[in-house]
Amino acid sequence: MTMNDEMLLRQGERIDDLQCRGYKIIQNPEYFCFGMDAVLLANFARVKPNGKVIDLGTGTGIIPILMAAKEKGMHFTGLEIQEEIAEMAGRSVLLNSAGDKIDIICGDIKKVPHIFKASSFNAVTSNPPYIKNTNGLHNPKGTMNIARHEVLITLEEIIENAAYLLSEGGIFSMVHKPFRLPEIITLMKSFRLEPKRMQLVQPSADKEPNMVLIEGVKGGGPELKILPTLVIYEKDGSYTKQLLKYYGQET
Amino acid sequence: MTMNDEMLLRQGERIDDLQCRGYKIIQNPEYFCFGMDAVLLANFARVKPNGKVIDLGTGTGIIPILMAAKEKGMHFTGLEIQEEIAEMAGRSVLLNSAGDKIDIICGDIKKVPHIFKASSFNAVTSNPPYIKNTNGLHNPKGTMNIARHEVLITLEEIIENAAYLLSEGGIFSMVHKPFRLPEIITLMKSFRLEPKRMQLVQPSADKEPNMVLIEGVKGGGPELKILPTLVIYEKDGSYTKQLLKYYGQET
Repeated sequence: MTMNDEMLLRQGERIDDLQCRGYKIIQNPEYFCFGMDAVLLANFARVKPNGKVIDLGTGTGIIPILMAAKEKGMHFTGLEIQEEIAEMAGRSVLLNSAGDKIDIICGDIKKVPHIFKASSFNAVTSNPPYIKNTNGLHNPKGTMNIARHEVLITLEEIIENAAYLLSEGGIFSMVHKPFRLPEIITLMKSFRLEPKRMQLVQPSADKEPNMVLIEGVKGGGPELKILPTLVIYEKDGSYTKQLLKYYGQET
Repeated sequence: MTMNDEMLLRQGERIDDLQCRGYKIIQNPEYFCFGMDAVLLANFARVKPNGKVIDLGTGTGIIPILMAAKEKGMHFTGLEIQEEIAEMAGRSVLLNSAGDKIDIICGDIKKVPHIFKASSFNAVTSNPPYIKNTNGLHNPKGTMNIARHEVLITLEEIIENAAYLLSEGGIFSMVHKPFRLPEIITLMKSFRLEPKRMQLVQPSADKEPNMVLIEGVKGGGPELKILPTLVIYEKDGSYTKQLLKYYGQET
């Protein structure tokens, strides 16, 4: 860590190396740290050349930062509702001297039509909260809770606003929980984001998938391509070749 | 083959051993022979104790015959539109002395409401034609064509009639092509067959899935359980342990 880097850190935060062209990210383990789901989504998401990409609920900014590290000539916007998290993501952008490629905006996904013009992006990514907010057991204001439960936003609201933001033929990419797949597909279709590409992710060959990566194309035709299921770990606990390929560390 | 068995055969037909409690099936390779999809569906399908099960588009009768070989106390009905195929399936039932457990009926799935009472089964299985009938290139009357293309029946008609036949809480199980998954899920939901269990099937670990097994429960709740992807072949071309387990030949 350089002297310069340290100046961007607040108490409780740390800088992690993203192992990709020197890119780094600021995280605060007391809030939440990005997971493999974000990394897989950043790899799964397709973008168009010279595309304008927006990440809905960007958190630490991990998805636009990882995508900016890999893709050239794109512009990324990260939208995050929580002020302190958006501010931290903004510092991660500075840390990577990526201010020309990435904007972090503090705002509510539900208010997207007041912030952006319709059809103003050609790709939308999202790693939304996975869990329905159906019980009152959790602390509704916790940062981690907002990231994991549908406290401030529902799946339908995310998909509706993604469809609003996308131009015709634009690409929506999301990571979510497999148990909600029927709802995801139905909602995507109802907002004209036709499911075109999907991949299940399993912890190991004999375990049930715990993530689904899915892509919808605005106004797309009705055929879905399902990729080979991505298995994370071999029996001996090492990463599979498939995963290392995703991480750009093909053996 | 016994003298008795041979008397049940017509020209061009053969008897295959199903490797399960001595059950056999009559097939005619000039029409079509059952595939691994049928065997996987017969293993995937859940039935209720003392259930009444109907197979829509039963062809050779392979699904009810395989299920009857494994499950006790059930009654199976196979509905097949093509007279000569239904007649052959009926002879397979005789071959297995299973006339008390399996009825083969020659009839049209589209006319199900004229043949059966609503809610009169608690399980429906189907291995329907996979391919949309959108071009005129194929021979519309070929037996193989009817089994593979939606010439006489569409996916929507199968799902609609399955929903009609099932009692509340009844189970619909189908094998189909992954590229049609969004349509399958949307149709199932629109006829209140809530997707509850699903499994992708891949030829090998690195190949895209070429089958999807899916279960819907009439009036079920909205959570889908996705099983670990079933991989058929190891790299060396031998069957995987997962598959042998399905075939009841666990090593």
